[in-house]
Amino acid sequence: MNAPVLLPLTEALARLQAEPELFVVYDANVAWVASQLTEALPVRASMALETSEEGKTLETVQALERWLLQEDASRSALLLAVGGGITTDLVGFAAAIYKRGIRYANVPTTLLAQVDAAIGGKTGVNLDGYKNMLGAFRMPEFTVLEAAFLRTLPPREFRCGLAELLKTFLIGDGAAYGALVSSLQSAQNKDERGIEDDIRRAAAIKARIVAEDPEEHGVRAKLNLGHTFGHAIEHEARLRGADITHGEAVAMGIVLAAELSERLGVAQKGLSAQLKVDFSRLGLPVASPYQVEDLVEALRKDKKAVAGGKVKFVLLRAPGDVVLQELPYDCYLHTK
Amino acid sequence: MNAPVLLPLTEALARLQAEPELFVVYDANVAWVASQLTEALPVRASMALETSEEGKTLETVQALERWLLQEDASRSALLLAVGGGITTDLVGFAAAIYKRGIRYANVPTTLLAQVDAAIGGKTGVNLDGYKNMLGAFRMPEFTVLEAAFLRTLPPREFRCGLAELLKTFLIGDGAAYGALVSSLQSAQNKDERGIEDDIRRAAAIKARIVAEDPEEHGVRAKLNLGHTFGHAIEHEARLRGADITHGEAVAMGIVLAAELSERLGVAQKGLSAQLKVDFSRLGLPVASPYQVEDLVEALRKDKKAVAGGKVKFVLLRAPGDVVLQELPYDCYLHTK
Repeated sequence: MNAPVLLPLTEALARLQAEPELFVVYDANVAWVASQLTEALPVRASMALETSEEGKTLETVQALERWLLQEDASRSALLLAVGGGITTDLVGFAAAIYKRGIRYANVPTTLLAQVDAAIGGKTGVNLDGYKNMLGAFRMPEFTVLEAAFLRTLPPREFRCGLAELLKTFLIGDGAAYGALVSSLQSAQNKDERGIEDDIRRAAAIKARIVAEDPEEHGVRAKLNLGHTFGHAIEHEARLRGADITHGEAVAMGIVLAAELSERLGVAQKGLSAQLKVDFSRLGLPVASPYQVEDLVEALRKDKKAVAGGKVKFVLLRAPGDVVLQELPYDCYLHTK
Repeated sequence: MNAPVLLPLTEALARLQAEPELFVVYDANVAWVASQLTEALPVRASMALETSEEGKTLETVQALERWLLQEDASRSALLLAVGGGITTDLVGFAAAIYKRGIRYANVPTTLLAQVDAAIGGKTGVNLDGYKNMLGAFRMPEFTVLEAAFLRTLPPREFRCGLAELLKTFLIGDGAAYGALVSSLQSAQNKDERGIEDDIRRAAAIKARIVAEDPEEHGVRAKLNLGHTFGHAIEHEARLRGADITHGEAVAMGIVLAAELSERLGVAQKGLSAQLKVDFSRLGLPVASPYQVEDLVEALRKDKKAVAGGKVKFVLLRAPGDVVLQELPYDCYLHTK
């Protein structure tokens, strides 16, 4: 796979002008973004998607494929995905298998997608409620970064993306982490205004890590900081019908990963407390509503994470400095 | 993609002994082959498929994925596809997208699959009757060549594979073409006995061409000799409910390609007549039941083949010597 390419909107529009077969698939929630694009570009056809985690299935992909077939899309076609991570995952996967692979590009309209989901070529759908069980590694031609497209993003979804943004800085740029936390704490509006540079910086960190290891055989796993416990929290929430977003679960997961890092002596005491203060001030939850024992039990059953009783944990030495370590799935319970 | 690997059965069995997670998917028609394999190998689970062109769909792939999920197949799993081209296409595609890609290997049990379909990594399914519209390029770990597995192949399907075998020699080895035609004409049984070497030789030619151009940007298109008109014949046959196999259509298509080559002065006069004699003696049809005008019209409508009114024809200079040439789709009608 190629390395990820990140483009500002103007440059992306210039590139797309020359496309002979441009198709747009957009999340119905951001029809206004799709309109801007279709007015500016030679779009052959466009299609709205009603997106949801439940609708992220092979059936939806098949509907996209039927539409492409009806529209006579050839191997030269380019699909533009406009929306959040569900949209870019669905469209990327549809592109990966249509006529054994056509090109696509992402126009993410959520903060989460701009700094994470729409970068890196992991595409896919859920199967019977199991997340991203089917998919393909296929790099988008490019990912457009345009903070103005976040204008209609609900505040809670913004915070969800913020958690991934902070995660990325904790992995790759400790100074940027500190600066972003300070500036957001003092800012009146905790929204997209003023964080364009941070989005670009975080997206570039993700792109760099992906370029090193596109199909996740090694360092790409660092991007899972906070996700091991985060997924366990999401799993428990689903079981109990609780409403916890992915970003919220990741924020709590990062705190747990920091606590584990302290218990193992990898991080200095106080790191997790500091993160709790930081996250709380930004409106993110920091304490899991579930017992760690329950999370560890959920982890044990997660066949995707556990192999031979071991889990590849992402530990935090300090902001900007993480380390991958294979440890027993229940090590949190046996350290202090 | 890697280059294709061809293995004799014994070597394949030796390699598979060490697989920790081996799954077998087999065409129900060759359950006897699957039994031989499951007795000799550490198979975790196996599944029979009722194969048909109508059942070569995304739904069947989804059923395979559900089965893998229920059987807890991990990213380390290896799927063994046992059957003809439909089976290897379906299983290869299922492997390509399960958890964003696991390994698979092919045990082809038709002559067509042994010399063609099971080699080269083109996987996929049909969509609404359009052949192989969805799929992936994914190379099998290896393809097993074992002529004994053709024992129960119906004679008509054997001849169907023979057409592809002859095609491959016409593309890559003129001497082998002549020798095979002579030996089969004098043989009492026109079946798998005695053609093991030819199968290996043809498979190796296909593998070499694929290795040069895995995703068909250039020379791989040579393998379409006889397929341009052949697909048009299959299309007409479907419209009229006629029973013509792919191999039969390819045999007739090769004759038409040879005629076109003569008309264009690419081949010496007499080549198509010679091929007609050769094919007829081996029980293959040589004269299209449809007017060339109708085939050209079908070609015109084939958006996969035609771009800007032109088609990339595979012309035959002489047995073993083909050339790709882009020509108007109706050039057959305007030459003599």
